Amino acid sequence: MRPALPEYADKAINEFIRQKVEESSAAGVVIGLSGGIDSAVTAKLCCDAIGADKVLCLFLPTKLTPKQDSNDVEELCERFGMDLEVVPIDVVVEAFAKLLPDASDRRLKGNLMARCRMAVLMHHAKLMNRIVMGTSNKSELLVGYFTKFGDGGADFMPIGDLYKTQVRQLGELIGVPERIVAKVPTAGLWKGQTDEGELGLSYEDLDEILYGFELNLPEEEIAKRTGLDLAQIDRVWRMHRESVHKRKMPLVPKLGVRTVGLDWRE
Amino acid sequence: MRPALPEYADKAINEFIRQKVEESSAAGVVIGLSGGIDSAVTAKLCCDAIGADKVLCLFLPTKLTPKQDSNDVEELCERFGMDLEVVPIDVVVEAFAKLLPDASDRRLKGNLMARCRMAVLMHHAKLMNRIVMGTSNKSELLVGYFTKFGDGGADFMPIGDLYKTQVRQLGELIGVPERIVAKVPTAGLWKGQTDEGELGLSYEDLDEILYGFELNLPEEEIAKRTGLDLAQIDRVWRMHRESVHKRKMPLVPKLGVRTVGLDWRE
Repeated sequence: MRPALPEYADKAINEFIRQKVEESSAAGVVIGLSGGIDSAVTAKLCCDAIGADKVLCLFLPTKLTPKQDSNDVEELCERFGMDLEVVPIDVVVEAFAKLLPDASDRRLKGNLMARCRMAVLMHHAKLMNRIVMGTSNKSELLVGYFTKFGDGGADFMPIGDLYKTQVRQLGELIGVPERIVAKVPTAGLWKGQTDEGELGLSYEDLDEILYGFELNLPEEEIAKRTGLDLAQIDRVWRMHRESVHKRKMPLVPKLGVRTVGLDWRE
Repeated sequence: MRPALPEYADKAINEFIRQKVEESSAAGVVIGLSGGIDSAVTAKLCCDAIGADKVLCLFLPTKLTPKQDSNDVEELCERFGMDLEVVPIDVVVEAFAKLLPDASDRRLKGNLMARCRMAVLMHHAKLMNRIVMGTSNKSELLVGYFTKFGDGGADFMPIGDLYKTQVRQLGELIGVPERIVAKVPTAGLWKGQTDEGELGLSYEDLDEILYGFELNLPEEEIAKRTGLDLAQIDRVWRMHRESVHKRKMPLVPKLGVRTVGLDWRE
């Protein structure tokens, strides 16, 4: 019941990237590289689509970021020929922390970090007439495992319709170094954090459950096919439902006639 | 050809606010108050909907903010009984400016300010189990006159379907002080900035044009009815078209089967 990688995924995404850069009359793209697989795959797809000279990578570490990530990012940029800029964001996060109550709470601080990164990426994009390629994957998006207007804030999301396990398959296919593909996923928001620890299950299991939902299977059927227990499955369903607002534009109450002649929202 | 204020606008918006607070199981709302009419109207509507004790106002000035705005915000909070916190954001904006190229460019700096404010509002909301009520109006939204993931970043937008001129009518109706209703609109991003100076036309004219588009009238017809010239009208149309991306979630290329069982995104 694992979601297979569509055979044409890389070509379809390359085409999407080319099209969006052209439609936006953009001079290129900006990507936040973390040393993890999602951003590595996104960056490589952009290189294949529009050429590495049009791909600016920004590495935005904090003092919590492992040195290994820095090495991996440098190696990636060298290997694929992308420009790299490093902007440590601690000073801004600390400035926020002094202004705000409870900013040492690790989750709140994590959100601040993600939003600082968004602001840095958008700043560079605006300055260079480029667009920001987000690096969120489908698994994260569907359970709301991202910061609203933080890592969730980008112009486009090339791998947004690929489950995490599919991103790994694609990474191997397009030549992302094995060490990055195999790295334990973490948002790096505090020391020792791992995605799977926080989510409470592995991406393999999460993806099987989400894919079951996508196929409209009842929870009992998913339990039977995957061997996972119902409580787990139901918990994922609730994560999905409770994060709906993160996948929508801010809701507006519609008044009077329905807008017809204008490109409204939703 | 002016868009009239729907008679039931305040009641419909009040109901929307009540419903969204309840659906979100939120303890209340957080609003960024600027001293201008949009945020004043939004705040008053929230008071009427859920009670002033559940409305936290944040005033987030920079050194450019006129003292008069500070006075107006204080007076509003006192008059309507809302809690007020003041968080000057200069230190964060300056920290960003030191990290980033060309951050003294006034437009780029304006975007940074707006994104800092978003982060502060979201932080308080998360901390207090509340939701952020954005203060964007329909005129701004339709021409993209806002910062993506800045003032455009909120949980809900109660006045998002009201043109600026309708917001003024509503403000008078629900008791927002006349001085605030009559204030010259500015995003306060630099000294001497006014919305109408930047947009290149008055909100009266802008709203007439946008309302014409909403009614599906051809540009020639709008020109005839309003007495505005075609070049102006066409410029507004282009602003509308070029800002489509600001009114959509980050686009994702769809791969494989269409997601059916899940609440996906646009």
